[in-house]
Amino acid sequence: MTYRIGIINVTGYAGMEAARLLWKHPGARIVAATGRSLAGKRLGDAFPHLALYGDFTITEEIETDVDIVFSALPTGESAKACAPLIAQGVKCIDIAADFRLREPGAFEQWIGGGKPHPMPELLSEAVYGLPELNRDRIREARVVANPGCYPATSILALAPAVAAGIVGPQIVVDAKSGISGAGRGSGGTFGFGDVNEDVSAYKIANHNHQPEIQQELAGLREGPAPKVTFVPHLIPMTRGIHATCYAPLARPVTQAEVTGLYRDFYRDAPFTNVTEAPPHTKHTLGNNMCLVHPVVDERNGMLVAVGVLDNLVKGAAGQAIENMNLMLGLDQPAGLDHPAMFP
Amino acid sequence: MTYRIGIINVTGYAGMEAARLLWKHPGARIVAATGRSLAGKRLGDAFPHLALYGDFTITEEIETDVDIVFSALPTGESAKACAPLIAQGVKCIDIAADFRLREPGAFEQWIGGGKPHPMPELLSEAVYGLPELNRDRIREARVVANPGCYPATSILALAPAVAAGIVGPQIVVDAKSGISGAGRGSGGTFGFGDVNEDVSAYKIANHNHQPEIQQELAGLREGPAPKVTFVPHLIPMTRGIHATCYAPLARPVTQAEVTGLYRDFYRDAPFTNVTEAPPHTKHTLGNNMCLVHPVVDERNGMLVAVGVLDNLVKGAAGQAIENMNLMLGLDQPAGLDHPAMFP
Amino acid sequence: MTYRIGIINVTGYAGMEAARLLWKHPGARIVAATGRSLAGKRLGDAFPHLALYGDFTITEEIETDVDIVFSALPTGESAKACAPLIAQGVKCIDIAADFRLREPGAFEQWIGGGKPHPMPELLSEAVYGLPELNRDRIREARVVANPGCYPATSILALAPAVAAGIVGPQIVVDAKSGISGAGRGSGGTFGFGDVNEDVSAYKIANHNHQPEIQQELAGLREGPAPKVTFVPHLIPMTRGIHATCYAPLARPVTQAEVTGLYRDFYRDAPFTNVTEAPPHTKHTLGNNMCLVHPVVDERNGMLVAVGVLDNLVKGAAGQAIENMNLMLGLDQPAGLDHPAMFP
Amino acid sequence: MTYRIGIINVTGYAGMEAARLLWKHPGARIVAATGRSLAGKRLGDAFPHLALYGDFTITEEIETDVDIVFSALPTGESAKACAPLIAQGVKCIDIAADFRLREPGAFEQWIGGGKPHPMPELLSEAVYGLPELNRDRIREARVVANPGCYPATSILALAPAVAAGIVGPQIVVDAKSGISGAGRGSGGTFGFGDVNEDVSAYKIANHNHQPEIQQELAGLREGPAPKVTFVPHLIPMTRGIHATCYAPLARPVTQAEVTGLYRDFYRDAPFTNVTEAPPHTKHTLGNNMCLVHPVVDERNGMLVAVGVLDNLVKGAAGQAIENMNLMLGLDQPAGLDHPAMFP
Repeated sequence: MTYRIGIINVTGYAGMEAARLLWKHPGARIVAATGRSLAGKRLGDAFPHLALYGDFTITEEIETDVDIVFSALPTGESAKACAPLIAQGVKCIDIAADFRLREPGAFEQWIGGGKPHPMPELLSEAVYGLPELNRDRIREARVVANPGCYPATSILALAPAVAAGIVGPQIVVDAKSGISGAGRGSGGTFGFGDVNEDVSAYKIANHNHQPEIQQELAGLREGPAPKVTFVPHLIPMTRGIHATCYAPLARPVTQAEVTGLYRDFYRDAPFTNVTEAPPHTKHTLGNNMCLVHPVVDERNGMLVAVGVLDNLVKGAAGQAIENMNLMLGLDQPAGLDHPAMFP
Repeated sequence: MTYRIGIINVTGYAGMEAARLLWKHPGARIVAATGRSLAGKRLGDAFPHLALYGDFTITEEIETDVDIVFSALPTGESAKACAPLIAQGVKCIDIAADFRLREPGAFEQWIGGGKPHPMPELLSEAVYGLPELNRDRIREARVVANPGCYPATSILALAPAVAAGIVGPQIVVDAKSGISGAGRGSGGTFGFGDVNEDVSAYKIANHNHQPEIQQELAGLREGPAPKVTFVPHLIPMTRGIHATCYAPLARPVTQAEVTGLYRDFYRDAPFTNVTEAPPHTKHTLGNNMCLVHPVVDERNGMLVAVGVLDNLVKGAAGQAIENMNLMLGLDQPAGLDHPAMFP
Repeated sequence: MTYRIGIINVTGYAGMEAARLLWKHPGARIVAATGRSLAGKRLGDAFPHLALYGDFTITEEIETDVDIVFSALPTGESAKACAPLIAQGVKCIDIAADFRLREPGAFEQWIGGGKPHPMPELLSEAVYGLPELNRDRIREARVVANPGCYPATSILALAPAVAAGIVGPQIVVDAKSGISGAGRGSGGTFGFGDVNEDVSAYKIANHNHQPEIQQELAGLREGPAPKVTFVPHLIPMTRGIHATCYAPLARPVTQAEVTGLYRDFYRDAPFTNVTEAPPHTKHTLGNNMCLVHPVVDERNGMLVAVGVLDNLVKGAAGQAIENMNLMLGLDQPAGLDHPAMFP
Repeated sequence: MTYRIGIINVTGYAGMEAARLLWKHPGARIVAATGRSLAGKRLGDAFPHLALYGDFTITEEIETDVDIVFSALPTGESAKACAPLIAQGVKCIDIAADFRLREPGAFEQWIGGGKPHPMPELLSEAVYGLPELNRDRIREARVVANPGCYPATSILALAPAVAAGIVGPQIVVDAKSGISGAGRGSGGTFGFGDVNEDVSAYKIANHNHQPEIQQELAGLREGPAPKVTFVPHLIPMTRGIHATCYAPLARPVTQAEVTGLYRDFYRDAPFTNVTEAPPHTKHTLGNNMCLVHPVVDERNGMLVAVGVLDNLVKGAAGQAIENMNLMLGLDQPAGLDHPAMFP
């Protein structure tokens, strides 16, 4: 059988990337896709790179029966749009941030602009959709909170070390992102003339992905909760995130020990590889891989852990499809096992 | 059955792109791949984006039985390397320029640096591998000359107009290329500090793709042979070619007439579309499409015909796979019908 | 004495570039600068790269006595804003297109959106501000129409050949521009995610710089007026224009003859050089040079003439300062003779 | 009087940038410039952006009397080349790393590849050329070690906090650099196809700029020496360095207190400004400014201090000229006070 997928807001970067990746998925296909400003248009006319979708038309609402829905609405609008579908028994993967922070006050403070969560009862039920940590729970979930692109990269870089207790709680995450992480809507703010040949930090130690990283790392081990200083940077490229994570070692470890520990941790993960050399974001361009690379700085007793991925794939739409595969009982890598594009 | 492919020089851009695209081809798979400098290395270690190939190892020579071979050697070395395989009955697709110029003197003048063609008997037999023009002959060919990236773009932009006789013989082709068109070997010449934030023309009216364009256009219609002024430009991007072609109209035509004529010409071509608006190279990033767009400049009696494609796919490795599909009796689009990547 | 400059709309790309270049001009300085949305702000706060201007404040109107005014308003708004100042005896350089097309109907058709020119009496008086062609008339002018960035490049590439009568009237100009040519206001349309790794043509044979090029070339020689097919392209860089111009030769000429003719034509021009090799836009990054390079394509009887410049300097603000120097009786290169920035 | 400058290796990025910046310096001019591979060529032919230098010719050796010499030779070759000139009384600014690490063993370990320093007696005399820290000593110096581009950025971002003792000794410096930081010679390694659309870390916790940062920070305050974990990253742009520095607070401080402390520290520094918002590298493109921006992360008791500059100007050639001005008794900002280029 072929499962039926609905995409809410196919016209943002994450939505259109899901459409790109789902073309020829062996177990599921898009049967409905919404997008307010472009409703009534054919998908291939709105986005010429999706011309293969032929006369598939963007609608205002999900008007067909679907088994699962991806919501790529902006954060804050997503939970409300998903709720009626969930009530009808449709499985839901939220690519926005609405279901990520489990503590109700955290949503209010970081995401909702002071307003409480619209569906607190669903919030407690939602599973954080990072299969490297929560594969079995994702399989059973009705609602999956798809990770943010920065948290996905940072958590995968740090998780083995945090879980093993080899680092202390004071952690720095310095992340570099291509412009598409900011979403298609922000073309106005991120004109080529401003972004090209430039790098800058933004929302220094004040980005809503910080509590998300902290929450998930805290779940990996008993003891003092990690305290994460998170600084994102915008760099002149379209896709890709590079997180460089720094954590003081809690006890002396060798490089070989740490590499072994990372390899063990990701032994069964089809989409996270531990590399011998510092990885390049471009090695994951367009595919669902996350590459991680831990380095022991013996001089200073510091662990440096690097993670890279494509923010629109493993950092958004690809991750959502991986979660879908698990929720629907399909093979975890179905439709996602292709090489990256290089150069 | 699954056909067995050999790739000579998998370590250049065209060779590694063929490997990327052939992953999971439904009717053929790579069983041997050579690359002098990296022989003995695993493909996924040499090129991390191809990590899925697992323990597949690069060799010095094609050491396994193959049904078809792609040669991605530098121009001038390719014919010699292919000849013994062709003699053994292996079908051959030459991605270099060795079999493109049919007139023996042309090879000597433009390609061979004054030396004659090493296999003149094969030269006369080789078919120019642009299925939009030569599909049936490619099906029967033993040796296919895969088109150059500039000629593929330019010929597809101009062919319907030239074949219909609506333009005169004096043609200008102004082409813009991303840096990967120059090949991986030229990293030294094309450092980031030189190419970024720059555009320049090179080999003005003196590039060896000029006679190739001229030869193929001349084959489309009786009458005075086209005289093509060809100027290539290097622009700061990695992939993509944009050819803007100018030809004085031989008789008055309307825009509707020309658009209709182009649509008719490409009605059965799975990989060439006529667009309503000026196409973007990025709309073909990573896939095998060529987008063409003819405009009638009524004020000046000029046809402007634009063509765009990804130089490593429809301009090289994808085109080679399309030719392979035809030569092996597989579906023409097999393994190549996926959306482009955007943004 | 130090002349007093006013800048209308210092907050667009051309206005802020004028401010950058005028810092430490030996004969003139900015005493007033307007910019509606940022009125009241300090220039160095609005644009950190201009921090040296200290507490210089942007105003709503020119409130100080000035000797000369640069208008960098959008085309269509500029003439009206300049008229009262001109009436008061202030010399005016219009960086917009309001005074460029001398035929009143041409303004209406190409620039004014069907509306007639607001100041037709000034229109006939305005001098086209390309000193390579009109130096003496600029010296006497009250109103100078600063050339468009595409026309400046194209005319300087073609002028010697057209003036000498060595080419026929049917001319193709294929131009490639960095994104800043579109102006700061268009950040919304030209987001990084759309522009990066892409090239496309726009307004094919329908851009308002076409009649401007045609008008100025027509003034260079008696005989049939040039017919210019002009196609602009957007490429992924911030600054720089590269015009590749094609014109059939009217009579046989040698490369040496053409090179000599170009060198003679620009012998006294401080800012236009004839190069031995194809020039790079980056060789003019940030300075007021235009580099031109003519090539005879003997095979096809075609002249290929390349011109490159920085669209914000020789294509806008630097050209305006060069015109100012002439209008005020200062040295033509005053304040403008510095190397380009490379890499 | 006009001082006479010699440049050793004008053909590298730092050397040619010095030539660009020294055009029209009010108190000094280049009278000799060497460059082995291009000796005998005119500077403007070798580098078209320097065409204004007219018939100035590159030589093999400094053949003219000079008052001061800039050495832009590769690290390890510089000290030997400067020694005879210093012996003749020529003041010397070494843009390479040969005189930066004062401890003789440090040179051997980090710079010399196991070989001892060739001029240990000069090593102890050399002054580290960061005027924000050592202005008076630079004024008296015969030999100045021009800072590395990463150290200049990092030290200026951290110095006020370290000097004031508000941070502990365990410091992380995460630096992002444009490609020109790697020098012109490395075009081969850093081809456009590899660098574009990519970010990666390199020499993780093992770069020779780490001991340089540590040495200079250690000199700012008594107490336990700083332990710096330094990770450089390459990003797809030509110029610009962004250092994001992390240091745990040694005592509670407010944002206002830290901002005040930074402003006080740089009150007399003409080229280092403290910004209100996160600075962009592009705000310093082509000029000698360093912009710093400290942020207190109160949640985690961490100081985040950002520094940005143009690696070829304040990170190399501009800094060298600033040092020259001090050594020759000229105004510190002479020839260097121009706006940055934007966009």
